[in-house]
Amino acid sequence: MSVLNSLHIPAFDTSSRETVQARIDQKTKPPGALGMLEAVALQLALIQKNPDRLSLNNPVMVVFAADHGIAAHPVSIAPQAVTRQMVFNFLAGGAAINCFCRSNDITLKVVDAGILEAIDNDHPDFIVARSGNGTADMSEQPAMTADQLEDALSSGVRIAQTLSESGHDLFAFGEMGIGNTSAASALLSLMEQLPAELTTGLGTGISVEQLTLKQSLILKTIERVRSQHPNTTNGITHSITPDIALQEAGGFEIAQITGAILGAASQQRAVLIDGFIVSVAALLAVRMKPECRDYLLFAHRSAEAAHKHILETLDAEPLLDLGLRLGEGTGAALAMPLLRAACAFYNDMASFESAGVTV
Amino acid sequence: MSVLNSLHIPAFDTSSRETVQARIDQKTKPPGALGMLEAVALQLALIQKNPDRLSLNNPVMVVFAADHGIAAHPVSIAPQAVTRQMVFNFLAGGAAINCFCRSNDITLKVVDAGILEAIDNDHPDFIVARSGNGTADMSEQPAMTADQLEDALSSGVRIAQTLSESGHDLFAFGEMGIGNTSAASALLSLMEQLPAELTTGLGTGISVEQLTLKQSLILKTIERVRSQHPNTTNGITHSITPDIALQEAGGFEIAQITGAILGAASQQRAVLIDGFIVSVAALLAVRMKPECRDYLLFAHRSAEAAHKHILETLDAEPLLDLGLRLGEGTGAALAMPLLRAACAFYNDMASFESAGVTV
Repeated sequence: MSVLNSLHIPAFDTSSRETVQARIDQKTKPPGALGMLEAVALQLALIQKNPDRLSLNNPVMVVFAADHGIAAHPVSIAPQAVTRQMVFNFLAGGAAINCFCRSNDITLKVVDAGILEAIDNDHPDFIVARSGNGTADMSEQPAMTADQLEDALSSGVRIAQTLSESGHDLFAFGEMGIGNTSAASALLSLMEQLPAELTTGLGTGISVEQLTLKQSLILKTIERVRSQHPNTTNGITHSITPDIALQEAGGFEIAQITGAILGAASQQRAVLIDGFIVSVAALLAVRMKPECRDYLLFAHRSAEAAHKHILETLDAEPLLDLGLRLGEGTGAALAMPLLRAACAFYNDMASFESAGVTV
Repeated sequence: MSVLNSLHIPAFDTSSRETVQARIDQKTKPPGALGMLEAVALQLALIQKNPDRLSLNNPVMVVFAADHGIAAHPVSIAPQAVTRQMVFNFLAGGAAINCFCRSNDITLKVVDAGILEAIDNDHPDFIVARSGNGTADMSEQPAMTADQLEDALSSGVRIAQTLSESGHDLFAFGEMGIGNTSAASALLSLMEQLPAELTTGLGTGISVEQLTLKQSLILKTIERVRSQHPNTTNGITHSITPDIALQEAGGFEIAQITGAILGAASQQRAVLIDGFIVSVAALLAVRMKPECRDYLLFAHRSAEAAHKHILETLDAEPLLDLGLRLGEGTGAALAMPLLRAACAFYNDMASFESAGVTV
């Protein structure tokens, strides 16, 4: 991946860890009493390389939308046309992610990463970065070409870097794409060598019959990809590489999010990871550039069962567990106030000394 | 309890449940995809008796502070003087609860419910409602007199009703009082007939030696109270009543919060319950007036192990689980944006029809 070869992600600088931890421990509270918020504050301080003050002034949520060839099969509760309809809904401000971004003061950008049919709309928060007119059916053939993959990863990197340069200091990513839990499950199976039964779930609420079909199509995809890319070389077993997995299973939005995670990390920006599908992109990004892991925070535990495998693999402890299964980045938008609260206590809470409180 | 005898809590009106649920199900999302937020929206709509629009414009956090006679023993990590020092910290804006209320746009009020030594301070958000100069040592004698209990419950009711009349449309309560996890554990043991080992925990982080002492003092309290109030009458076993439990174990802040929960419910205001200690007050309030339960939402699962018994007893599923063990109402303050998000999606999210999205 040429764009990624030249992308540098600075190693996490932990030299100020003790200074930051001491500051947290001097706050007027029992040690550790703020639980996970203390870990968030520590991570943000190390990412931002500023033990004196955390900044979370201008978070941005970028929702990437794309279509999936696999959706020609009835693997979703919604017809494929809904991807495009929901992009219109995002641009009109009526979707859940719009409500939560408004409620939590988060800038929202919407990216057409490759929905079936382009949208002509000059909304200032609409970014057109089409890597194709939807992917091909992964159960039959590679979801995208090598050029499309390169385009999608590059677009993601570029979008994140541009938004970082315009002053956004924390990133969250969301997705919309009918059929994209199928792609995500296939990616997880391919990357982690997990059987389709473990990675395939109910998505946004399909029937048992649909689940059976979805599993069989994912199994077919896995078998097709494995036959093309044998996972043993000279008798040594190895995983399928993230770029091969992405090209084979798609989708354009998942590839762009993978690029955007790496692009944000290259700018030393914290990234708040949403649910199942964005976590698959995070897994791909970490496999491509392990040093990006330190920049990731995890917003919530999705109701999609396979999410737990990714969280375990990435040693991630998400902030929320609300039974969400919507996508769009909604879990990340809902967790944003917890990051703000972590910054607030780190920046503004009195120390035992300043408040005259007996230790 | 004279004040409570005359307090009327309107029965929860569920007649619009289907209308509200239908509105939620028509939003542009798969059914149930917003998980616990959908349950929050439904409950708020029923409390507010307005299926058309939820209101959460002016939430208030009221932190009640008081001292505890039990704190003469080393049952806490902090000396008793810290209660008063922390009230000064609240008034100076430097505590965690100040940071989180600012961060999440919540009005903060601080009540002196009976700390050892009164504070002379004309801060506009400081409410003086002293039910005594700290409670007596519950392991030796009743924590408060019957008159003090009546005063504390009345004060809580009055504070909540006054704030409701001034336009606050959602309540959260917090507490500060060195030794108050001891009182809360004793109350839980007395109310639920649970052994001290199950209700007594590490509080804000005491040592094993302190825990052993704390347990023995709570056991001594339970035995003292049970000997004064035998829990069998004519051969029938019954629990100790909430008013006897409160008078015997204290504290003033817990009794005032109990009154405030009932006062808020009498005004048909939703109450967002914080962690272990406020949940004990919620349990007492529900035992006094079961109809108040419908007005309660639960913010978080405390790191204090015994909290789970209360949550189970009240059939409560808290929104957050962040490993918090601070008190002050911090868990409720952190959960407030989730309630705002529930209102935002309920009020502003497009329906399938309005957005032109295929069902």
